Amino acid sequence: MKALIFRNGKLEVLDQSLLPGEKKYHVYDNYEDVAQAIATMKVRGAPAIGVAAAYGIALAAYSYPDADKKGFIKYLERASAVLASTRPTAVNLFWALDKMKTTWENNTSLDIAKQKQALQKEALRIAEEDLMLNKRMGQYGNELIPPNAVILTHCNAGALATAGYGTALGVIRAAHECGKKIQAFADETRPLLQGARLTVWELMEDGIPVTLITDSMAAYLMQQDKIDLVIVGADRITAQGDVANKIGTYGLAVAAHYHGVPFYVAAPRSTIDMNLDFGHEIPIEERAPEEIRRVGNVLLAPADVPVYNPAFDVTPAKLVTAIITEAGVVRPPYPSAIKRLFNCNLE
Amino acid sequence: MKALIFRNGKLEVLDQSLLPGEKKYHVYDNYEDVAQAIATMKVRGAPAIGVAAAYGIALAAYSYPDADKKGFIKYLERASAVLASTRPTAVNLFWALDKMKTTWENNTSLDIAKQKQALQKEALRIAEEDLMLNKRMGQYGNELIPPNAVILTHCNAGALATAGYGTALGVIRAAHECGKKIQAFADETRPLLQGARLTVWELMEDGIPVTLITDSMAAYLMQQDKIDLVIVGADRITAQGDVANKIGTYGLAVAAHYHGVPFYVAAPRSTIDMNLDFGHEIPIEERAPEEIRRVGNVLLAPADVPVYNPAFDVTPAKLVTAIITEAGVVRPPYPSAIKRLFNCNLE
Repeated sequence: MKALIFRNGKLEVLDQSLLPGEKKYHVYDNYEDVAQAIATMKVRGAPAIGVAAAYGIALAAYSYPDADKKGFIKYLERASAVLASTRPTAVNLFWALDKMKTTWENNTSLDIAKQKQALQKEALRIAEEDLMLNKRMGQYGNELIPPNAVILTHCNAGALATAGYGTALGVIRAAHECGKKIQAFADETRPLLQGARLTVWELMEDGIPVTLITDSMAAYLMQQDKIDLVIVGADRITAQGDVANKIGTYGLAVAAHYHGVPFYVAAPRSTIDMNLDFGHEIPIEERAPEEIRRVGNVLLAPADVPVYNPAFDVTPAKLVTAIITEAGVVRPPYPSAIKRLFNCNLE
Repeated sequence: MKALIFRNGKLEVLDQSLLPGEKKYHVYDNYEDVAQAIATMKVRGAPAIGVAAAYGIALAAYSYPDADKKGFIKYLERASAVLASTRPTAVNLFWALDKMKTTWENNTSLDIAKQKQALQKEALRIAEEDLMLNKRMGQYGNELIPPNAVILTHCNAGALATAGYGTALGVIRAAHECGKKIQAFADETRPLLQGARLTVWELMEDGIPVTLITDSMAAYLMQQDKIDLVIVGADRITAQGDVANKIGTYGLAVAAHYHGVPFYVAAPRSTIDMNLDFGHEIPIEERAPEEIRRVGNVLLAPADVPVYNPAFDVTPAKLVTAIITEAGVVRPPYPSAIKRLFNCNLE
């Protein structure tokens, strides 16, 4: 089941806020709806957000009248600004919008119809590339997974969070596919329960053994030597190797460190923000209190309780055993290792 | 609002599984219902469970026919066994049942009516003593709380978890009452959300500033230097100072240790099990998968996902900065310090 399908000039977005209970695609023909779908987390996961934003630009281009060449770039710039304003933390969003901008800048000499085609082609290319990169990450990451490993993951860094296959779950899938008889534990990942709702569902669909726990049980599992390694995705990685990812990742990394459990991050190079050195520079989104106060129609706490709801946290590089990318696995010292990642061009 | 009220020979139990949405007392006149209320966590919290069990024995005694002296002790023993089988981890349950047993053993020469009175008196004494001990713990604990402290707590170790006032929340209350302008953060405490539902409610009722977070946010708060100290209750403490408490406590202790944040445990001496040396000897209750799969009528995960649901974890003594009891604050080395706690008799 794909998070995003571009078909007949429209973007079909699987509503992940309804999974696993309901499998519903929204069909969008304009960028505003795509922006809204990102902001409300119908589509979520750093790579998937990037792909959705690229498609959003393609839709914006298509809705623009062919005759009016003069305002085209301005219109695309506005669409890009709207899409960029949806969520601040995942850098893949800005990376994808940047790719789209480069495309329209390189094609200004063409007529509008051709420019639209070029933008659609680039969005499709970004999506296809993401899928390919995930599979390559899976192969690299698989080398780190021992047979019979018990793997803990947090949030959802799976097919649903990407164009397909997944980053952290891509590594788990690759290990499973090559017959390593792995088992997974999935943190439920409060408040929005991406682990319980999405990761568990993805792994069960693939026949990968998975056990659901609350986020608060992870350290206790490690204390009992039940976890061989942790693997998570990322929303932004700095040049020094600090990792922003779903809230709860940092606590998990501290626990893994304390117990000597390897802590791996799987992410494509588009998640690495070479413009930032340190994690504290990464903008951390804070979301609505209601996400914590309620689940569905069930009120979990006094309705007026003050809430702190950061959607992400930052794990410092020193707690990260290795970062798995499509260009290879990097280990400390990260600054030089990450820099080298961008020297190699992959085909 | 009291968790337990003994009135007119009946036990009124506030149904904490319905809080804060609904404030409903069940009125019980037999021990079987009390056992069921403990097992289903209508009443919860180690000291409150102990008090409820003592009342359960008093109810058992009262339901027994006065004329039939011969079977009385057997009947009480059976009631005690049923009450003891409800929950395995909190030692206060067994401690209170033991107190009741001592009472019936000391009064076998009396007629049944008098024995019943003695048992009721002992149950009431246990409840009154618990309230008094909590206030004393509050005073001792208060000395550890700096002015303007920001305090993180987990689960509910409050008035609802005790005969009143609370252990961890008793310390927070005492600091608030003496004007220290403290603030609290409450972990929501998955899966049963005692933090969100009970702790937040108690603190708001008392006008103590509280902010609700998910369990997974605690480490991130510490990373940002937003937490001055952690204080939690306990379900069982061993002679060496290992602490069983609500699941998630251990991860919190690891995070506190990593960040140099003091980690305090507040519990009466009835929580200390001198028969056990180490935490791994403490039986850890595992509860039903549905507690994690659902909240109310909302399904959070695929209905058939395997779940691991330990209700408690064990924090080793080396991660505990100090233990606050009604007989004083003890610090490492715990084995000797804890032993000394039982040398002093309090009035």
